[in-house]
Amino acid sequence: MRRVALKLEYDGRDFVGWQRQDVGTSVQGVLEQAARHLTLGAPVTCIAAGRTDSGVHAEGQVAHLDLPQKHTREAIRNALNFHTRPHAVAVLDVADVPDDWSARFSALGRCYRYTINTRPARLVLDHGRAWHVARLLDVTAMQHAARHLLGRHDFTSFRASSCQAASPVRTLDRLAVTQHNETITVIAEARSFLHHQVRNMVGTLKLVGDGKLPADAVRDILAATDRKAAGPTAPSDGLVFTRVVYEPDPFVAS
Amino acid sequence: MRRVALKLEYDGRDFVGWQRQDVGTSVQGVLEQAARHLTLGAPVTCIAAGRTDSGVHAEGQVAHLDLPQKHTREAIRNALNFHTRPHAVAVLDVADVPDDWSARFSALGRCYRYTINTRPARLVLDHGRAWHVARLLDVTAMQHAARHLLGRHDFTSFRASSCQAASPVRTLDRLAVTQHNETITVIAEARSFLHHQVRNMVGTLKLVGDGKLPADAVRDILAATDRKAAGPTAPSDGLVFTRVVYEPDPFVAS
Repeated sequence: MRRVALKLEYDGRDFVGWQRQDVGTSVQGVLEQAARHLTLGAPVTCIAAGRTDSGVHAEGQVAHLDLPQKHTREAIRNALNFHTRPHAVAVLDVADVPDDWSARFSALGRCYRYTINTRPARLVLDHGRAWHVARLLDVTAMQHAARHLLGRHDFTSFRASSCQAASPVRTLDRLAVTQHNETITVIAEARSFLHHQVRNMVGTLKLVGDGKLPADAVRDILAATDRKAAGPTAPSDGLVFTRVVYEPDPFVAS
Repeated sequence: MRRVALKLEYDGRDFVGWQRQDVGTSVQGVLEQAARHLTLGAPVTCIAAGRTDSGVHAEGQVAHLDLPQKHTREAIRNALNFHTRPHAVAVLDVADVPDDWSARFSALGRCYRYTINTRPARLVLDHGRAWHVARLLDVTAMQHAARHLLGRHDFTSFRASSCQAASPVRTLDRLAVTQHNETITVIAEARSFLHHQVRNMVGTLKLVGDGKLPADAVRDILAATDRKAAGPTAPSDGLVFTRVVYEPDPFVAS
């Protein structure tokens, strides 16, 4: 057997989320079923860098699995893309990695992009790909608020009650809020995130943008270490898992 | 009555095309039905700058129609966006225009964008939004070929047999082929286009990119004035009607 890393794109609306569940189609389940065509039917386990929720998209999710030696990387990519049809997931790239390499535990950073659209008209081409907030938001205030979240903090106030992480402390390396015409983009980067952390941060920044919360209140919300202190969870539609950082990057060598 | 111009976005996959037809849902039909909520049920005719085919998308199609005086531009936009639900069309903007203004005949220019994706993996997030050609194309040769099409020519070789235009002569102002990673973008601009002209030009450029046709052969294809001389029609998926040029631009004033 040899371990391979997969770079994945998927449309989150097609799935109950990354993780295999009792009911519904998961990205993990679709990939594991497809991979059995490469293992003569033997069960395969596929581990991802991040377990995205239902509705959350990926442009650069990374997962690993163990396969027999005999296939080329191109053959693996093509076979998985064939056998995952018609589900909205694609294997963009395949890389050979060491036997002890883990898409999850070897990851040094994770990057997400959240998109808010403030135009009056409902979304058509970006339907399901952005949070439609049909009014102007104060982006300068949102940028100010975002700065309070940067760095190492106890993010309990932005953590889902279902979060299974041992510690609520995370180091947020980047939280950039930018605006281009009617589109507001939030880029979030950290070694790892708590469950719903990005969507809860965006939900709170949106309250600031709406003028319902002063930008500096975000400091107090962090200090409260209480989920009820922060804003609601932003919808999954706007969130894309864009990139996972590894050193070395297995896909550059490939 | 007063005439208004609409700026429209739509997903071409949801429609049989712009034009009302005996069977199937058209963008025109959906808008005209929605507009009757503003005319106490009186029939409305909606005329577009370009009659896009089924599967062709729009980010900035423009249409006009006549409505009673009483509604504000915002009320018209909101009413049409409400009553066109759940169809994949949105009214982005509404402008007041003179009674003799026509979305079609007042247009001084039309802009289209065609997207080709050359990556090996099937498309997921861009499914239905690009032509998936899963191999490298020679973009330099395509750029060379595109230059032969610029300017005023008899475009009979690139005209659908169903085209109803009186003359096959058109002046192509821009045909720019650019590449960014695995995405090739073709931008086409002209005062007007023949039916299928953009898709037929792209289908021919793709043969050049594939090495199946020398770049200079495009000059001979033009000279042949024979549809059979050119390449096949590129799929509708990759085509977006991006912009219509008017002088003055009614939406800038609005």
